[in-house]
Amino acid sequence: MKIKAIYEKTVPIASQIRNAVIDFSQMTISVVAVVTDVIRNGKPVIGYGFNSNGRYAQGGILRERFIPRLLGADPQELLSDDGSNFDPFKCWRVMMQNEKPGGHGERSVAVGTLDMALWDLVAKIENKPLYRLLAERYNNGRCDTDVYVYAAGGYYYPNKDLAALQDEFRRYLDMGFTHCKMKIGGAPLQEDLRRIEAALKVLPGGNALMVDANGRFDIPTAIAYLEALQSFGLRWYEEPVNPLDYLALAAVAAASQMPIATGENIFSLIDSLNLIRYGGLVPQRDFLQMDPVLSYGLVEYLRILEMLRRHGWSSRCCIPHGGHLFGVHIAAGLQLYGNEAYPEVFLPFGKFAEGMELKDGKVTLPDEAGIGYERVPEIYDILRAL
Amino acid sequence: MKIKAIYEKTVPIASQIRNAVIDFSQMTISVVAVVTDVIRNGKPVIGYGFNSNGRYAQGGILRERFIPRLLGADPQELLSDDGSNFDPFKCWRVMMQNEKPGGHGERSVAVGTLDMALWDLVAKIENKPLYRLLAERYNNGRCDTDVYVYAAGGYYYPNKDLAALQDEFRRYLDMGFTHCKMKIGGAPLQEDLRRIEAALKVLPGGNALMVDANGRFDIPTAIAYLEALQSFGLRWYEEPVNPLDYLALAAVAAASQMPIATGENIFSLIDSLNLIRYGGLVPQRDFLQMDPVLSYGLVEYLRILEMLRRHGWSSRCCIPHGGHLFGVHIAAGLQLYGNEAYPEVFLPFGKFAEGMELKDGKVTLPDEAGIGYERVPEIYDILRAL
Repeated sequence: MKIKAIYEKTVPIASQIRNAVIDFSQMTISVVAVVTDVIRNGKPVIGYGFNSNGRYAQGGILRERFIPRLLGADPQELLSDDGSNFDPFKCWRVMMQNEKPGGHGERSVAVGTLDMALWDLVAKIENKPLYRLLAERYNNGRCDTDVYVYAAGGYYYPNKDLAALQDEFRRYLDMGFTHCKMKIGGAPLQEDLRRIEAALKVLPGGNALMVDANGRFDIPTAIAYLEALQSFGLRWYEEPVNPLDYLALAAVAAASQMPIATGENIFSLIDSLNLIRYGGLVPQRDFLQMDPVLSYGLVEYLRILEMLRRHGWSSRCCIPHGGHLFGVHIAAGLQLYGNEAYPEVFLPFGKFAEGMELKDGKVTLPDEAGIGYERVPEIYDILRAL
Repeated sequence: MKIKAIYEKTVPIASQIRNAVIDFSQMTISVVAVVTDVIRNGKPVIGYGFNSNGRYAQGGILRERFIPRLLGADPQELLSDDGSNFDPFKCWRVMMQNEKPGGHGERSVAVGTLDMALWDLVAKIENKPLYRLLAERYNNGRCDTDVYVYAAGGYYYPNKDLAALQDEFRRYLDMGFTHCKMKIGGAPLQEDLRRIEAALKVLPGGNALMVDANGRFDIPTAIAYLEALQSFGLRWYEEPVNPLDYLALAAVAAASQMPIATGENIFSLIDSLNLIRYGGLVPQRDFLQMDPVLSYGLVEYLRILEMLRRHGWSSRCCIPHGGHLFGVHIAAGLQLYGNEAYPEVFLPFGKFAEGMELKDGKVTLPDEAGIGYERVPEIYDILRAL
């Protein structure tokens, strides 16, 4: 059993949207296909992967370091002990050979992209949907059969007015979402408050809305926003400060009556550990959004969940960034709180598979072996072309 | 005044050496040349840069993000307000446009590589050695005219015995170095102790030796090594634990009678701030080794120095990783403690320029405008070929 070839390509997901810190006018992602010599249904098994939005494609690092290491390994080094399947943990060790500790960005995305494809492979070879395989291996067989997802949107874009924001959120509710997230911090506080008030007019209550500052604020601004937001009863206040400024986060968390959410720009076990040690977050109240694909893959994410458990955090506190089908499987199989969804941005990579039903804020799982990108025509067209 | 072209290339610096965590059999670096329309001595001014060892070339990120942003900018955006020179801070903002906060690795190296070339340019356009320019702009005109450098070596490599280690350190002393650094943690403690004792036989005293674990140890192992090392009176104990595990570092620092050194795998202002807030390091005793080129360049390093100053740390506590001429200029112009040197590894990129004299552990500065790579024939051959 071996990997015969790995293909990678950079794909644009550019759009006119912006958050408080960046615009997405040049945004790209890497897509990969890992082709094996395993035959299922008369065809070679291929694992597909791509990276979550926000951190650009990683073609250079993939081509120069991580793909050659996988292809250069003795095939046995990549397999489970009984040789019956690929072992993502062993593949991870091969990929991370001769990588120094520290510096967790970019390469964490490249490894995560290949890791997604490897898990897709492993589940296809076992002929199971990935969430079932994860439940059996890592969650005592327990899984959720539907997953809470919320609609991440409410970006700033040129000439977007309050009515456009309201229309956007109405569309999300019509699709079956119950909670919507909007960006803040890209406009002055008073303007953001008008946007929030407009959004709340079309939502069933304050708890149906999350706000996301994308790490833009210093402590005084984060606290000023906090004070202005407290009375709305919002679902959460996301990334008020620099994602690595644990002291600033702890100050906001200590002053907050609202849940705080953060973690999408924390890309490793050790950074996650520091977030828990120093960030002042509160289990049962706050949410952790570490993104498995941006953070060295599900292999590292499983280590993060184990670290969280040892520190008194349940997997039900986790709701990953990323908004793709891989995240839905992880949320179901490991019984997380839920998963992000992007109904109208970063298309087509956030699309659900055919047959998945979204109702009352929860989405059902696909029954395809693997992740199921073959059942998302717009994604499969891109992956197949590799 | 504008940038006409930027060239980049990946260059191997592979060798058989290894530290406690990685081998360097596939190590590469990126080299860049930034060509301007400014004419000096009848020729266009070109700035040269390359990245420090250990983190691989960054060709993909350079070609896809940072070079296009510099070349795509309005030339005015890159210049000082009076238009008389390039402004590395403005160039930095252009490069970091649409980059999300957090995730400080790889891209920090790509930006640092271009940053080195930009400072080379700026000093050449002002027709001054870089260290003089830095002293004038950022250090009230004060600078050092020679810089303390120590010989970083003592790597593990196949079939290296104690006599080979001793011979290596004798060569460093003969060259004019007074202090030598060796790797530990790549062998069992007892074997490392034999290596240390052998090294000390050819050195003038315990204080002439530094040991470097490259972040390999967990807390119990780091403490066991600490206990075994305390009596030697070593110059410092470097990177005992994972570079981002501030709590583990604080535990070692609290138990140590020796100076602790760390920081070479800390790649941003915010990570440096966390190191200072949580790492338990002691000003006047411990050493900080943040590497300007791996950490978003000298632009970010100046921010780090300012943060350190506000936290009670003098620039004299800083001795950067990297071992190249750019670091020597920074150490002289900003009056740091000194700079790392690699007399026998990562060649030719650690070589001093013609005319620089090494004596009693200190090296003189070159008087060439810019950094002076034109006066290091083995480096200039590579840079010129761009």
